[in-house]
Amino acid sequence: MELGMVGLGRMGANMSRRLLRAGHTVAALDRSPANVAALAAEGARGAADRAGLVAALSQPRAIWLMIPAAAVDAELAALLPLLAPGDILIDGGNSYYHDDLRRAAMLKEHGLHYVDVGTSGGVWGLERGFCLMIGGETEVVMHLDPIFATLAPGAGDIPVTPGRAAGRGTAGQGYLHCGPSGAGHFVKMVHNGIEYGLMQAYAEGFNVLRHANAGKETRAVSAETTPLAHPEHYQYDFDLAEVAEVWRRGSVITSWLLDLSAISLLGSPDLAEFAGQVSDSGEGRWTLAAAIDEAVPAPVLSAALYSRFESRRQAEFANKLLSALRFQFGGHLEHKPQP
Amino acid sequence: MELGMVGLGRMGANMSRRLLRAGHTVAALDRSPANVAALAAEGARGAADRAGLVAALSQPRAIWLMIPAAAVDAELAALLPLLAPGDILIDGGNSYYHDDLRRAAMLKEHGLHYVDVGTSGGVWGLERGFCLMIGGETEVVMHLDPIFATLAPGAGDIPVTPGRAAGRGTAGQGYLHCGPSGAGHFVKMVHNGIEYGLMQAYAEGFNVLRHANAGKETRAVSAETTPLAHPEHYQYDFDLAEVAEVWRRGSVITSWLLDLSAISLLGSPDLAEFAGQVSDSGEGRWTLAAAIDEAVPAPVLSAALYSRFESRRQAEFANKLLSALRFQFGGHLEHKPQP
Amino acid sequence: MELGMVGLGRMGANMSRRLLRAGHTVAALDRSPANVAALAAEGARGAADRAGLVAALSQPRAIWLMIPAAAVDAELAALLPLLAPGDILIDGGNSYYHDDLRRAAMLKEHGLHYVDVGTSGGVWGLERGFCLMIGGETEVVMHLDPIFATLAPGAGDIPVTPGRAAGRGTAGQGYLHCGPSGAGHFVKMVHNGIEYGLMQAYAEGFNVLRHANAGKETRAVSAETTPLAHPEHYQYDFDLAEVAEVWRRGSVITSWLLDLSAISLLGSPDLAEFAGQVSDSGEGRWTLAAAIDEAVPAPVLSAALYSRFESRRQAEFANKLLSALRFQFGGHLEHKPQP
Amino acid sequence: MELGMVGLGRMGANMSRRLLRAGHTVAALDRSPANVAALAAEGARGAADRAGLVAALSQPRAIWLMIPAAAVDAELAALLPLLAPGDILIDGGNSYYHDDLRRAAMLKEHGLHYVDVGTSGGVWGLERGFCLMIGGETEVVMHLDPIFATLAPGAGDIPVTPGRAAGRGTAGQGYLHCGPSGAGHFVKMVHNGIEYGLMQAYAEGFNVLRHANAGKETRAVSAETTPLAHPEHYQYDFDLAEVAEVWRRGSVITSWLLDLSAISLLGSPDLAEFAGQVSDSGEGRWTLAAAIDEAVPAPVLSAALYSRFESRRQAEFANKLLSALRFQFGGHLEHKPQP
Repeated sequence: MELGMVGLGRMGANMSRRLLRAGHTVAALDRSPANVAALAAEGARGAADRAGLVAALSQPRAIWLMIPAAAVDAELAALLPLLAPGDILIDGGNSYYHDDLRRAAMLKEHGLHYVDVGTSGGVWGLERGFCLMIGGETEVVMHLDPIFATLAPGAGDIPVTPGRAAGRGTAGQGYLHCGPSGAGHFVKMVHNGIEYGLMQAYAEGFNVLRHANAGKETRAVSAETTPLAHPEHYQYDFDLAEVAEVWRRGSVITSWLLDLSAISLLGSPDLAEFAGQVSDSGEGRWTLAAAIDEAVPAPVLSAALYSRFESRRQAEFANKLLSALRFQFGGHLEHKPQP
Repeated sequence: MELGMVGLGRMGANMSRRLLRAGHTVAALDRSPANVAALAAEGARGAADRAGLVAALSQPRAIWLMIPAAAVDAELAALLPLLAPGDILIDGGNSYYHDDLRRAAMLKEHGLHYVDVGTSGGVWGLERGFCLMIGGETEVVMHLDPIFATLAPGAGDIPVTPGRAAGRGTAGQGYLHCGPSGAGHFVKMVHNGIEYGLMQAYAEGFNVLRHANAGKETRAVSAETTPLAHPEHYQYDFDLAEVAEVWRRGSVITSWLLDLSAISLLGSPDLAEFAGQVSDSGEGRWTLAAAIDEAVPAPVLSAALYSRFESRRQAEFANKLLSALRFQFGGHLEHKPQP
Repeated sequence: MELGMVGLGRMGANMSRRLLRAGHTVAALDRSPANVAALAAEGARGAADRAGLVAALSQPRAIWLMIPAAAVDAELAALLPLLAPGDILIDGGNSYYHDDLRRAAMLKEHGLHYVDVGTSGGVWGLERGFCLMIGGETEVVMHLDPIFATLAPGAGDIPVTPGRAAGRGTAGQGYLHCGPSGAGHFVKMVHNGIEYGLMQAYAEGFNVLRHANAGKETRAVSAETTPLAHPEHYQYDFDLAEVAEVWRRGSVITSWLLDLSAISLLGSPDLAEFAGQVSDSGEGRWTLAAAIDEAVPAPVLSAALYSRFESRRQAEFANKLLSALRFQFGGHLEHKPQP
Repeated sequence: MELGMVGLGRMGANMSRRLLRAGHTVAALDRSPANVAALAAEGARGAADRAGLVAALSQPRAIWLMIPAAAVDAELAALLPLLAPGDILIDGGNSYYHDDLRRAAMLKEHGLHYVDVGTSGGVWGLERGFCLMIGGETEVVMHLDPIFATLAPGAGDIPVTPGRAAGRGTAGQGYLHCGPSGAGHFVKMVHNGIEYGLMQAYAEGFNVLRHANAGKETRAVSAETTPLAHPEHYQYDFDLAEVAEVWRRGSVITSWLLDLSAISLLGSPDLAEFAGQVSDSGEGRWTLAAAIDEAVPAPVLSAALYSRFESRRQAEFANKLLSALRFQFGGHLEHKPQP
């Protein structure tokens, strides 16, 4: 079927390619004419502007936005006058589901439909397919089924969950209509919250392994520093790439993130090319907001997010106050930071 | 080759079977004669007692203990007089690596070798193979290679890590000599610490999804209870089994634990047969002890362990003190627990 | 000066008394006529309804709301038609500062002034005075200074902070104009977030002390339960009331909350009259929302809030999933809950 | 009475002074002769070496060690040959209570007594007195009562806990015999664990206040950075010294640590002279070890310790792995660290 794609970045371009290869028609728009030209060379209908995009599609149109969450409202406002009742707008980026609820209501007043799609898969999606979490009206979501079925990974060689009936829904194909407006981004939000927690669990574990040779360092005796009571317990120099590799086979903690850890540690055992300032893109924060509203404890998901904040030195003033208090009550002088 | 197996519980019996099926000789001992008889029926040399086990093996003997960590020292003491220099004792259970260091030194004085093996795979190991993390002397570990190679899953259909040289070590087969004594259980300890963190991340995420209909409840206005500011944001009734299923395909958080979550939620959407009192078997605690000794932050791994403690009501006195303080400063009366 | 007080609960009644005793005029309104009568007996002008309250005050009127946060908007809407330009509405409860911003803008359109006051002191405030954190227009806050000065504790016998200039502001008297609208409740919000953290720190510490006799229990050896490696380290039966008492004098952790802990533990060493289901009244949640918006790590404040959620069993489904996963991968059966 | 003091650092010198001023006899020893001379000038019997110290005291001698925990064992070994049965050794530093148990048993074999004393009060102790938490044999502790009574703050002007009987023990004087060997340092350990938690709660709260102007910064729209949805909510420039000051009077969170925060923030609103690399001296770690052994959740105390580890960049490798994974699955490039 026909789809308009707005935004040809990492994600949007690969999704367009996956659709084109399956025989769908894609009309493509991007701020960068070069990106449009590149995709047109692969078979897309390149559009020079929004009017061109809209003109390249037959009604009812379906237009997929794959742009930063902060740019969605402006894009919707710009497209709105060009569209006709019955057209469908799909937000496949990382919008907050609160915004979905608001946008769906607003577009409905103009006779337009809104579908929110949480998309996971990253740069590997062209090859693996994209896992799609979908929110919106049932008929509209069903109308778009050919698009979702193509973008999704399909059953692939992943074993069927034991006990699962053969014809039970589309989740086994890698896409799911999760519920009404906002449901897709809600599920994607929690997906990313979990992702932060999983990543942090591996990161902490590998960090413990990396410091397992702490007993080989010598430390001076001082009232400020805790002596390591048993240096003989920390004499291990682990090969982290090999540890990651062995865990990939038969252990309880096998996962795709572990596969990626193995790739990273094999290529760069010290990860020296990274500074360790870790960004976060919103979903982890929103997951916590939801947990707090629901009065549901989420200590692991919180710790994962806070570790990212700390990696960006956002605790600096708090730490300074700790040092100030230690100086006040105990006359403790800070150790000078290592240059 | 020949191996003695002490302990025919869930793990020991399946490991013995996997060895027998590959043509190894297994001499088997268990507190329960019925367990011994069952394995003998599958080809093992059943032993009635420790002397029988030792007699059933040719020198240098290799005896694998697959028993609770708390029972290992007594078992070693009982076996010691029956063994000869050059014999090998393998602890495949969940011992603390501190104990490995002590035992290896003790056994060395008697001319015996000690190998510590962290074993992951659970009840699925018979089919999937067991992921093995090994610590001990290099020659001894190499001598046991046929055993490890059989127990381990092998390369299977898990893709090779890109960039990994074909002949690089055994990790790609699912077993790894991690380092000297204690190294195997150290790596297994951290493996389990990570496992706790991963499990907790999924558990928190699914809990947030499950309470996404919190806005459908009505709450009374009271100074004690925070009103839910936007009930319209929490109107979702998610089908958790379907969500788990869709995440299994193409998402960033695919993992074996997610596969198991999908099985659990498909079979029992409310998990009503579980009370939610979660045990912990030591490795999570030891991982934190190591992190603390190394001065390495482990907030996610800690939160995961503490959540288990809380599930067992170990915070009860702390919570009572909070209620007492709220009463003291604010005259706040507790809400009565729901019966 | 004259003040209208709406809401004669624990806080509002005591604040009115403190004002009356200092010679101010208080017009008082409450849903309960008995509460109004009681305060009238102490010198207040009792009002039968909102119109009566408004009539009892001369212009520009100042009316203080001391009611649940969830009831403020309705109260403002009901009072609005009765008031005249220049009148002042003060919200002294625990409103979210977002609501202050909205209300101040709305009231401004009607020529009314809005002041938000975070009030700390609880049931002890009548005696100790109330610590006041104030947000709003400078002239309006200055106009109300006699009220604030009376409600606040004053300098009392609390030593002046060394280096603090004698005439520096009102903070040394226990009240502070923190900034424009919302600033008072923002500071109060963070105050309560800290309060949660402090309370939880004491609660955890006393819980560790209370379980310091864990080595006296005997535990069965099992693969499910970690044995306590050194029971001889946990043989202490501490008298918690005495510990709280000794810490009150000269230790680094002296505080009012510790004083209250000492009272609680002296009167009830086991705190058996409490169930340990701990409420939270919003500010802790909002503090985290602010921390997350600001990208500032708040692990202690989060853990404190989550402990309250857990005390109310809000993690139950998460815990069940942990048990389900342990059963799936390891065949682990739950320990039955203790009846 | 007579006391030998070994170690005339910040703590030992002030404790000696407090004893001298009350008329006790102090024999003093330190690695630095200048420190000995200084104290001799204030009335102490200065000792040139251990033999001199021992000779300056009549039997049964009581010798108080106020030295780094890591130096205690060596000091005990050096003193042992010089002492006579019945002599008493007191460790007033921050030893791990496990070491107390071991030392008490070892010294008992030589007919010597061992008393462990946790000491709180820091550099303010000379003026405020020292809060003492004492472990050891009852008769020995009673024998030393005059020393403890002098060092402790006494009742001072701190109000008696309501309901507390007048003659109930010594806790009201600021010292307490907590139990047998190790009990003093166990209670002190938990005291410091709580201290870490309290400090961190204030630090996080003030950090949230400090960033309350986050909405004044402008941020670029990017897929990597979460936009601040409501910058109008973060427009506050709080005066933190004033906030600390107002909280000191009548609020729920008054404490000595808050008094010290007020001093710090008054003198240095930006705390620019501190780097924010926060040491930890062992007790926080040991408190967690105890909590974990007892299976008692301690999320706040853990988070406080981990924040200190993070302040010292101990999470760096973990953070790098997070960045590596984000690059692997999403092609995300790190933001460059700010110079």
